[in-house]
Amino acid sequence: MKKIVALGELLLRLSTKDYLKFSQVNEFNADFGGSELNVLTSIAKFGLPVEFITRLPKNDIGESALMEMNKYKVGTDFIPMGGDRLGIYFLEKGASIRGSKIVYDRAYSSFSTIKKGMINWKEVFKDANWFHWSGITPGVSQDAADVCMEAIEVANEMGLTVSTDFNYRANLWNYGKSPKEIMEPMVAKCHVVLAGDYASKQYFDIEPEGTTEKELLVSLCEKLKDRFNSIQKIAITNRGSISASHNTWSAVLYDGKQLHESESYNITHIVDRIGAGDSFMGALIYGLNTYDDATALNFAVAASCLKHTIYGDANLVSKEEVENLMGGDQSGRVQR
Amino acid sequence: MKKIVALGELLLRLSTKDYLKFSQVNEFNADFGGSELNVLTSIAKFGLPVEFITRLPKNDIGESALMEMNKYKVGTDFIPMGGDRLGIYFLEKGASIRGSKIVYDRAYSSFSTIKKGMINWKEVFKDANWFHWSGITPGVSQDAADVCMEAIEVANEMGLTVSTDFNYRANLWNYGKSPKEIMEPMVAKCHVVLAGDYASKQYFDIEPEGTTEKELLVSLCEKLKDRFNSIQKIAITNRGSISASHNTWSAVLYDGKQLHESESYNITHIVDRIGAGDSFMGALIYGLNTYDDATALNFAVAASCLKHTIYGDANLVSKEEVENLMGGDQSGRVQR
Amino acid sequence: MKKIVALGELLLRLSTKDYLKFSQVNEFNADFGGSELNVLTSIAKFGLPVEFITRLPKNDIGESALMEMNKYKVGTDFIPMGGDRLGIYFLEKGASIRGSKIVYDRAYSSFSTIKKGMINWKEVFKDANWFHWSGITPGVSQDAADVCMEAIEVANEMGLTVSTDFNYRANLWNYGKSPKEIMEPMVAKCHVVLAGDYASKQYFDIEPEGTTEKELLVSLCEKLKDRFNSIQKIAITNRGSISASHNTWSAVLYDGKQLHESESYNITHIVDRIGAGDSFMGALIYGLNTYDDATALNFAVAASCLKHTIYGDANLVSKEEVENLMGGDQSGRVQR
Amino acid sequence: MKKIVALGELLLRLSTKDYLKFSQVNEFNADFGGSELNVLTSIAKFGLPVEFITRLPKNDIGESALMEMNKYKVGTDFIPMGGDRLGIYFLEKGASIRGSKIVYDRAYSSFSTIKKGMINWKEVFKDANWFHWSGITPGVSQDAADVCMEAIEVANEMGLTVSTDFNYRANLWNYGKSPKEIMEPMVAKCHVVLAGDYASKQYFDIEPEGTTEKELLVSLCEKLKDRFNSIQKIAITNRGSISASHNTWSAVLYDGKQLHESESYNITHIVDRIGAGDSFMGALIYGLNTYDDATALNFAVAASCLKHTIYGDANLVSKEEVENLMGGDQSGRVQR
Amino acid sequence: MKKIVALGELLLRLSTKDYLKFSQVNEFNADFGGSELNVLTSIAKFGLPVEFITRLPKNDIGESALMEMNKYKVGTDFIPMGGDRLGIYFLEKGASIRGSKIVYDRAYSSFSTIKKGMINWKEVFKDANWFHWSGITPGVSQDAADVCMEAIEVANEMGLTVSTDFNYRANLWNYGKSPKEIMEPMVAKCHVVLAGDYASKQYFDIEPEGTTEKELLVSLCEKLKDRFNSIQKIAITNRGSISASHNTWSAVLYDGKQLHESESYNITHIVDRIGAGDSFMGALIYGLNTYDDATALNFAVAASCLKHTIYGDANLVSKEEVENLMGGDQSGRVQR
Amino acid sequence: MKKIVALGELLLRLSTKDYLKFSQVNEFNADFGGSELNVLTSIAKFGLPVEFITRLPKNDIGESALMEMNKYKVGTDFIPMGGDRLGIYFLEKGASIRGSKIVYDRAYSSFSTIKKGMINWKEVFKDANWFHWSGITPGVSQDAADVCMEAIEVANEMGLTVSTDFNYRANLWNYGKSPKEIMEPMVAKCHVVLAGDYASKQYFDIEPEGTTEKELLVSLCEKLKDRFNSIQKIAITNRGSISASHNTWSAVLYDGKQLHESESYNITHIVDRIGAGDSFMGALIYGLNTYDDATALNFAVAASCLKHTIYGDANLVSKEEVENLMGGDQSGRVQR
Ligand SMILES: [Ca+2]
Ligand SMILES: [Ca+2]
Ligand SMILES: [Ca+2]
Ligand SMILES: [Ca+2]
Ligand SMILES: [Ca+2]
Ligand SMILES: [Ca+2]
Ligand SMILES: [Ca+2]
Ligand SMILES: [Ca+2]
Ligand SMILES: [Ca+2]
Ligand SMILES: [Ca+2]
Ligand SMILES: [Ca+2]
Ligand SMILES: [Ca+2]
Ligand code: NI
Ligand code: NI
Ligand code: NI
Ligand code: NI
Ligand code: NI
Ligand code: NI
Ligand code: NI
Ligand code: NI
Ligand code: NI
Ligand code: NI
Ligand code: NI
Ligand code: NI
Ligand code: NI
Ligand code: NI
Ligand code: NI
Ligand code: NI
Ligand code: NI
Ligand code: NI
Repeated sequence: MKKIVALGELLLRLSTKDYLKFSQVNEFNADFGGSELNVLTSIAKFGLPVEFITRLPKNDIGESALMEMNKYKVGTDFIPMGGDRLGIYFLEKGASIRGSKIVYDRAYSSFSTIKKGMINWKEVFKDANWFHWSGITPGVSQDAADVCMEAIEVANEMGLTVSTDFNYRANLWNYGKSPKEIMEPMVAKCHVVLAGDYASKQYFDIEPEGTTEKELLVSLCEKLKDRFNSIQKIAITNRGSISASHNTWSAVLYDGKQLHESESYNITHIVDRIGAGDSFMGALIYGLNTYDDATALNFAVAASCLKHTIYGDANLVSKEEVENLMGGDQSGRVQR
Repeated sequence: MKKIVALGELLLRLSTKDYLKFSQVNEFNADFGGSELNVLTSIAKFGLPVEFITRLPKNDIGESALMEMNKYKVGTDFIPMGGDRLGIYFLEKGASIRGSKIVYDRAYSSFSTIKKGMINWKEVFKDANWFHWSGITPGVSQDAADVCMEAIEVANEMGLTVSTDFNYRANLWNYGKSPKEIMEPMVAKCHVVLAGDYASKQYFDIEPEGTTEKELLVSLCEKLKDRFNSIQKIAITNRGSISASHNTWSAVLYDGKQLHESESYNITHIVDRIGAGDSFMGALIYGLNTYDDATALNFAVAASCLKHTIYGDANLVSKEEVENLMGGDQSGRVQR
Repeated sequence: MKKIVALGELLLRLSTKDYLKFSQVNEFNADFGGSELNVLTSIAKFGLPVEFITRLPKNDIGESALMEMNKYKVGTDFIPMGGDRLGIYFLEKGASIRGSKIVYDRAYSSFSTIKKGMINWKEVFKDANWFHWSGITPGVSQDAADVCMEAIEVANEMGLTVSTDFNYRANLWNYGKSPKEIMEPMVAKCHVVLAGDYASKQYFDIEPEGTTEKELLVSLCEKLKDRFNSIQKIAITNRGSISASHNTWSAVLYDGKQLHESESYNITHIVDRIGAGDSFMGALIYGLNTYDDATALNFAVAASCLKHTIYGDANLVSKEEVENLMGGDQSGRVQR
Repeated sequence: MKKIVALGELLLRLSTKDYLKFSQVNEFNADFGGSELNVLTSIAKFGLPVEFITRLPKNDIGESALMEMNKYKVGTDFIPMGGDRLGIYFLEKGASIRGSKIVYDRAYSSFSTIKKGMINWKEVFKDANWFHWSGITPGVSQDAADVCMEAIEVANEMGLTVSTDFNYRANLWNYGKSPKEIMEPMVAKCHVVLAGDYASKQYFDIEPEGTTEKELLVSLCEKLKDRFNSIQKIAITNRGSISASHNTWSAVLYDGKQLHESESYNITHIVDRIGAGDSFMGALIYGLNTYDDATALNFAVAASCLKHTIYGDANLVSKEEVENLMGGDQSGRVQR
Repeated sequence: MKKIVALGELLLRLSTKDYLKFSQVNEFNADFGGSELNVLTSIAKFGLPVEFITRLPKNDIGESALMEMNKYKVGTDFIPMGGDRLGIYFLEKGASIRGSKIVYDRAYSSFSTIKKGMINWKEVFKDANWFHWSGITPGVSQDAADVCMEAIEVANEMGLTVSTDFNYRANLWNYGKSPKEIMEPMVAKCHVVLAGDYASKQYFDIEPEGTTEKELLVSLCEKLKDRFNSIQKIAITNRGSISASHNTWSAVLYDGKQLHESESYNITHIVDRIGAGDSFMGALIYGLNTYDDATALNFAVAASCLKHTIYGDANLVSKEEVENLMGGDQSGRVQR
Repeated sequence: MKKIVALGELLLRLSTKDYLKFSQVNEFNADFGGSELNVLTSIAKFGLPVEFITRLPKNDIGESALMEMNKYKVGTDFIPMGGDRLGIYFLEKGASIRGSKIVYDRAYSSFSTIKKGMINWKEVFKDANWFHWSGITPGVSQDAADVCMEAIEVANEMGLTVSTDFNYRANLWNYGKSPKEIMEPMVAKCHVVLAGDYASKQYFDIEPEGTTEKELLVSLCEKLKDRFNSIQKIAITNRGSISASHNTWSAVLYDGKQLHESESYNITHIVDRIGAGDSFMGALIYGLNTYDDATALNFAVAASCLKHTIYGDANLVSKEEVENLMGGDQSGRVQR
């Protein structure tokens, strides 16, 4: 099996317990996450080899992060340790009509100081067939954007599939470049895209046309496909937010011609919805390496649906659990 | 800004974790609460200065209560320390079809031994424009009722608005007086009232007439207004109890002529419904000091709706969170 | 009052907290359970004397189990201590669309080595009027099956009512006998049966006929009654699994002629559904000793409905709580 | 075996975790204790039947207390439920040079309202050979003192041995009688006494004479024996307080002629020293029912030494653990 | 009473529980601390009014810090909110022969971006008689050093006593200036100094001479006094590190002529030694405002001795607890 | 670097928190351990590659164990999954004069059913230079003993160093063979031995002669060396048990001629002494691969000394922490 490689920032997640407000707590749950790592953890649970490229500080917190990746069989052999600090995000877990709240403390992170030349991409990609990145990385710093572009180029040269998750974050992109200027040439070398309405508008001024939901989705996909010839497949997830504890969830996959549509799930009593998009991306990458398009989509939607019941950033469900849900069993019965 | 003052009993709340029964636990969560304090904590979070009058024992438990009030900027400068003990309530948190259960242990409390003359109300009300009390206070003891009447009278003399929450508690009123005998002259000097069907019947033998829900509400308000000339505004909340975890919630505000009706919220996955009425009262007082009647009502309903997602007796949401919900966003999306 | 006696295996239950996956935890909640013990604990909470027969290892874990039974007034006077180990089950608590997962570690348990002659059944049944067992016990080992048959025979001789819960467990029955061969003569001496579709097929190749739900239920009961003359009453519970957090729940009781049907409850925000069937059985035994058939059924359904809100294997609600729900109050209001 | 009976107040103990100050916590450990109950729990662990007489409120907190006694096989068959509340003590656990701090909230307890005639002492003492009480009980209220005297008299009539622990508490004795007036006639009917310097002075104005430690001890015993003819044995414990985490511990037993002296233990890394005196008393009662005087003393000192390593009010060590320490093994090696 | 004012950085402290290594935890205790804040919290507990000047980010973490200061009556009226982030320190609590380990993550903090002119020192010092700072502040950034100098100058102008704690931190001082260059003019305007061997050498190249411990201490004080004419009193603490759980602790106070020497305490079973120096400084400031020099020193040593038993950065003991230890009671007996 | 390989049983450790007795808990800490795994985890922390051979059940508990080994970089590539269950040990953590108590539940484990031929030892040892086993493994079952002998033989053929820890466990060896019969031929092919007085007597009837401690140690080593020609180095640890919280610790290393003696450490405030011997063995193997004999011994003693401060079975300290202690710093100062 060939490796899946991803580049991105690893964050320390400090979250409140039991739906308490920040001002009510004197302890935080401490976990590690980050969009691209979440993608890989998920893939590793399904059984493919994965390798994560990031930068971590050379201290006990950085080493604890390494050990957590070891635990889940996420490869860490190419990580250049160094820099000042690990990025943090504080999470006040909401419930019912009160949404969760995130306070970022990721500025000046080790990852934002990763530099071109630190990673030997040829070596990294030797046994790999896939490279994944997301819009968060070029939003972090010029350096991170440069390293990401460096990776995309080597990946293309070496014939890897390149995927991206648009992942637009309004509170990043503070280093003086417009998202469009940076993203345009990067996406132009990608083959699989997890897109979205809002990000497409922010990054590329692309707006879908049409009246039905389906027309709008097809329009968005076609416009993206027109702009970026390299793109072969476009996925779009659809979350209906009834409350912080109750969402609906579905997705589509456009293959250049056809729009595959998944079942729509009703998810109530949500345990943790952070990282659901990442779990979709991870399962989609796994699926596209394993199944046909329609099955890959259904696998990805079922997997990310289950993510809403898993505490933490990353999806920890097994392939069997996903296939069981795909097979139609939403009963939540006790498995003995 | 002028201060909001309240008089009432502060209680130590000892609650079971994770929906355990009393017989299953060997630890309690320990928090402080009490109807009138909850009202003030809520108002302080919205930014107005507040002052709480109560009586606390001169020991470490009483001092911990003081420190908790400090934390939330609830003024404690006029509290006469002394007496035997802090009142306690034990709370077995229910879920689904099993309701929460409260065991009171508040007899012989320091507050029940507060005495007329202990509080210099002239001094307390110097920078204040509002005094709030609830039906719990006169239910505690003759002494508490006397001090409450003393406060109401000075407040009226000094031109403060006086508000009350009927808050009828069947397990109080054990000192030989009928609730009516005590409440009648007190309510007769109030301007804003949080009333209710059941309490109006218990206290004043008032029963609304009519066939529609609205007719009944208007009738109740008119009968109260007829009986008590001083009353200018009457609010009534309406809880629909579908289960311990799922309620509906709305309210009306009668301004002497018109009945303002709020939106009705559907609240499922409730975190903690204790103190929801208090959070409504707090937000209403804040609203009547800030907005027009209709907006004040909507603010109070949205605030108390959010209270159902906040652990503890008191509402800790910010003005921005309330306004966001008032604006129609019930999606519970993650705020980054 | 006469005692209710049961025979069965007591298990140590090690469960994950807060819906975490097994791989995420470094602590387990530790509780004791087991189908027949759960039945008795429930009955003891309603006020009848009960006695549990099992076998426990002579070590601190076995003694802790004894102390837990003491706590709930479950009699332990006839338990022959000995054998190698206490059976364990690991429980990964699921939520929403992810069901709970159980990993059994009960092989080689002390209970599986209980031997005929170890229990003086004449003495045990002296003040008793009821003996209960379930299909789990004969599934554990030949020895356990032998002791169970021994008990059933003495109980019949001494005029006790004998009840059984079919409780078919596919991962038991590993000692070389077919379930049918063992169960046939045992059920043939029972008077009250908690049956089920699937178990009836597995144990006795009985399949109901009919088109409506009711026809199927009546058919199953009649076929069981035809096969086993001793049976006087047959109960069947009906769980609708909408998700791990949301079920519907009802039951029927066949008295040889008539099918009593209970109300159907909608249970959402489930706290713990393990042991719900046992809580039904316990409440039914209590009910049949206290009320008429229809009331006994309603009591049993209401009690087991409340079990879904109680953490742990056993139902800890009081008779008053059950009667309140039977009376129609599903509101989950705070009881003060 | 004959029963050991005790009369006393059961308290809810609410303690801080991890040596936190009261103002730092938002949860309390919740346990049950009380001097005379601690004595009985200890005896029950050693294997003798025991019965506790107290009064508890008829609510969920009172019932939880009953269940805790069940767990440890402490008999509760004669407890008259009723009254207002369960007494509470708050415990701030100290360490090192900072001692633990107790805040009492036991006034107006159910036990303080126990009345003469509520207990059928003849029935209680039918299978008993020993009655124990402590100086706390008559200090609580006139009613409690009256019931205690009632019990002492019946016990003497029926030939039971009566033991008392002087247990002087300065913050009790608030009902208008002097300790001496009350204690004098009660102690005059006791046979075994756990005495102490300070209490002997407070209660009876007795002060030992002599220069060496031993002379003082003998003097105190002789003076007590002279004053109270009924007394047959007097025990005195000796704690050396080096710090909250490090004590020395020994005791003597005077048999009317001879002063038996125990080994002195050095106890560092103390887990919980509350109830150490009670655990001494319990083990002494057990010992005097089982061994000769010298062995009883050594057993009691070793048992109470181990209590310092047991969390909670009551000593939960087994007879084997005590005998192992008595045998001289203080190594604390791992037992496999 | 006049206010005590301090300037410094407030840090979020994230510590491991139960002596676990960083790699073993998935939750952190979360508290607030920082040398100068610790000094003020301590003083506020003793009863003097205090005001803290710092800079905090305008987010929920910054607001939680404000609320914690409210709780302990530390004034926050002059804090200019803003900047990027709250400094953090991770603490791996050690025990026995393994020392605690701190990982700092304080770079780029809001406090490091405080600017001259942000604080109206005239207003701040209006009702104050004392200003305190420590060597940490000028080590953080040029801006912080500038603001500190600004404060020292206004304080001198307005006649306040200025105190400093040398607090040399090798991992600070990264902005291109030597500690000496910065510290020299600042210390030259101070009146009370908490000095130390190592810091005096690092900052000023001052090395004591002599052979006995006392000669060395006097020499250090004299050399500091010679260099800085403004200094009136110099305190030096002396920690003997036997292990992470066992220290000795004493201090001296030089008044320009005489060296007062305190008792030396033996502190074993240490709960938390972080902030002990700060608690000494706080108690010394309180003492110098209350007692004569010798008593102030003894108060400060006893207070900081007790700090070793208090969880968290700040000393929370009361004046009574300190006086009790000063009076010689090191027994750690239970206070009822 | 060459790999270190070990064979042994992995156990689930379920331990009580906060020094509670088994009967007091309703939750267990859950960790993984086992003598030979502990040895490898320790070595992996120091930086050498390691591989563990065991057998684990194919279920979620077995997989969680694999993930824990991943975390610490312990290789698991050759583990044949299968069998019935994971062995368990329950640990009641003692303190002060009360020792910890272990209840084993390891019978019928997956490891006990490992079979000859399941492991391709040639493949396992390809890049290895060391094989380690302990006396626990052949004590578990005939199968485990056979596999162990199989490994020892291949290791010798392939020129690896073979080490063993005598680790005599009285509650094993239940399969009908005497320890001597089994151990004799196994030890006869070992080169490095962690021996002990008691085990040498139990296994081989060897008893040291002499009067001084040193004479006895040399005698034991010489007798072992005489019996087993293959042995090159013999280590013996020496624990002085002052209490469960306070031990002394030292060791010797005999190199065939000379007895190297280590420093003796005084360890008080012990956090967790389980696995201290294993941590010595791991550090000794690391040391013998890195340093000269005397330094290896000192490294091993310092490392295992630090283990007493680490929660869990395995030593998690770094090489730097050990070298710091070896260098003489026992102060436990805070490292910033
Ligand atoms: Ca906490
Ligand atoms: Ca993420
Ligand atoms: Ca607990
Ligand atoms: Ca309340
Ligand atoms: Ca944990
Ligand atoms: Ca069960
Ligand atoms: Ca807490
Ligand atoms: Ca007690
Ligand atoms: Ca945890
Ligand atoms: Ca600090
Ligand atoms: Ca428990
Ligand atoms: Ca081990
Ligand atoms: Ni916690
Ligand atoms: Ni939930
Ligand atoms: Ni917990
Ligand atoms: Ni918890
Ligand atoms: Ni929870
Ligand atoms: Ni806990
Ligand atoms: Ni919930
Ligand atoms: Ni927890
Ligand atoms: Ni929940
Ligand atoms: Ni926990
Ligand atoms: Ni907790
Ligand atoms: Ni906890
Ligand atoms: Ni915890
Ligand atoms: Ni602890
Ligand atoms: Ni501790
Ligand atoms: Ni400890
Ligand atoms: Ni502890
Ligand atoms: Ni807990």
